[in-house]
Amino acid sequence: MGEFDLIRRYFATQPATDSVPLGIGDDCALLQLPAGRQLAVSIDTLVEGTHFLPGTDPARLAERLLGAAVSDLAAMGAQPLWFTLALTLPEATESWLEPFARRLAQRAAELNIVLVGGDTTRGPLALSAQVHGTVAPGLALTRQGARAGDLICVTGTLGDSAAGLQTLFDQLPAGEHVDVLRQRYYCPQPRLAAGQQLAGCASACLDISDGLLGDLSHILAAATQPLGAEIVVDDLPLSMALLAQYGPVQGHKWALSGGEDFELCFTLPVQQRAVLARLPVTATVVGRIIERPGLYLQYSDGQLISTSAQGFDHFPG
Amino acid sequence: MGEFDLIRRYFATQPATDSVPLGIGDDCALLQLPAGRQLAVSIDTLVEGTHFLPGTDPARLAERLLGAAVSDLAAMGAQPLWFTLALTLPEATESWLEPFARRLAQRAAELNIVLVGGDTTRGPLALSAQVHGTVAPGLALTRQGARAGDLICVTGTLGDSAAGLQTLFDQLPAGEHVDVLRQRYYCPQPRLAAGQQLAGCASACLDISDGLLGDLSHILAAATQPLGAEIVVDDLPLSMALLAQYGPVQGHKWALSGGEDFELCFTLPVQQRAVLARLPVTATVVGRIIERPGLYLQYSDGQLISTSAQGFDHFPG
Repeated sequence: MGEFDLIRRYFATQPATDSVPLGIGDDCALLQLPAGRQLAVSIDTLVEGTHFLPGTDPARLAERLLGAAVSDLAAMGAQPLWFTLALTLPEATESWLEPFARRLAQRAAELNIVLVGGDTTRGPLALSAQVHGTVAPGLALTRQGARAGDLICVTGTLGDSAAGLQTLFDQLPAGEHVDVLRQRYYCPQPRLAAGQQLAGCASACLDISDGLLGDLSHILAAATQPLGAEIVVDDLPLSMALLAQYGPVQGHKWALSGGEDFELCFTLPVQQRAVLARLPVTATVVGRIIERPGLYLQYSDGQLISTSAQGFDHFPG
Repeated sequence: MGEFDLIRRYFATQPATDSVPLGIGDDCALLQLPAGRQLAVSIDTLVEGTHFLPGTDPARLAERLLGAAVSDLAAMGAQPLWFTLALTLPEATESWLEPFARRLAQRAAELNIVLVGGDTTRGPLALSAQVHGTVAPGLALTRQGARAGDLICVTGTLGDSAAGLQTLFDQLPAGEHVDVLRQRYYCPQPRLAAGQQLAGCASACLDISDGLLGDLSHILAAATQPLGAEIVVDDLPLSMALLAQYGPVQGHKWALSGGEDFELCFTLPVQQRAVLARLPVTATVVGRIIERPGLYLQYSDGQLISTSAQGFDHFPG
């Protein structure tokens, strides 16, 4: 079977639906947006050697690619609808394509998103996914809108993905905690339901891809007036697995600056605090938006340390 | 200036418009589709070493990427609206980004399409563009719908792009014909206005990326009944530049199997023939859809040769 027959076999045309009048296989896919909704789109790329180690299990790449891309929809409070896939492969082999396509289809079904088109080319291994979702006009969660006094909140636990990657670099044997951390690295869980519930409540929101400090600085930069953020370090939510494997000091470092947790970071007016208890995922208040520009870390011993998104090499402990 | 500051500088956020309530810079772009229109999307990738020679002028890559991608919208009869860009670069240097971004912006303005988002990553040079356009529901031109007796038509001239690439391989000095052929290779001209006029007239349509025979075989494969195609070789439209530089025999070979001309190939019921004269670009009848399955080449000496999309090494002359 030829290379492109293989690809056709694994990314087969689906029957037309109301939402996808014409899917894979023509010059364009034709898509029908629900009436009265805005389109939200985002494109994400994973490159071998930059975003993942050579030889990574293709099933893991499928779940990571789709999870990371759909997380951008979650961060806008959008509902997923469709995605396209641009796949660059050194060679199209069945042993790579079969597990990749199988896991991609599974994960797409779990995330309620449908593959509608793509492009396959030969070259160094790289994968781009563009995701498409919908939001009610005016209700999308953007990075802009934080105000002094707002609570800084995050979903789930932070730092696990960086820890999971470290277990791979360290070639640690599988084990209870190691497995949890690696799963967090490989398989992002887009916080779709939380994002949709936060639309109209949160003042600003994004997903954590650069690390909490880096992403918070995006929220500060997008604000209409100069603002700062104060983080209470002991309030950072760390998983049992992270604490058990690497301890609290390293855990806090990764929680602040380890990337790719794909949890939501959002700012919440204090009077909206009650929404936290209604979210389908644990959300934790980790600090406050303040008037004084900059990023500040509050320690339990009373220290308040000025830091930055790029370099907090002067991190204590 | 840091790498990502450079990128921000060259792909700057634009003010919100009715069509793009939120553009570059957030987790997603927010897009407003005109009422009553369907969305048409297509993603295309160019990889260094596969689709272009190492060291290719970045301005040339910009026009080639966007032209090829928008051509997919032309092939559906769609109107361009928005595009996203996934850029993978070994390093982000001003000397690469400045000419790339400048030409991309120019070409986007010419093609009436707006950059709304993207992703920039480090890795082997590769570029993906996803284009988004709109069509009236039910009026999109698809590959499906050709019937026996339909005329096979193409816009413009064929084979020039393959010839242009050959002039690069041959390292020919610049010159009148060489320049024309290279321009055809580098800067595809999506036949947008022609595609839009053909919507509702042509029975099937696509853009020529694999070569006329290869793309015609896609139209045959998509038809609801078994069909064939007969091409009158002497009717293939060849440019003056191609004839002067490489002569008719090589010219015909490239017209049939050279890829990436990005002209439209469409099938037209005979009673719709009058539309050809009204198109804003020259269109030529090059053959007929026939009941007998297969691809056939009709020569002026009366020979009728059965051929295939893949291997027509038995091409005479």
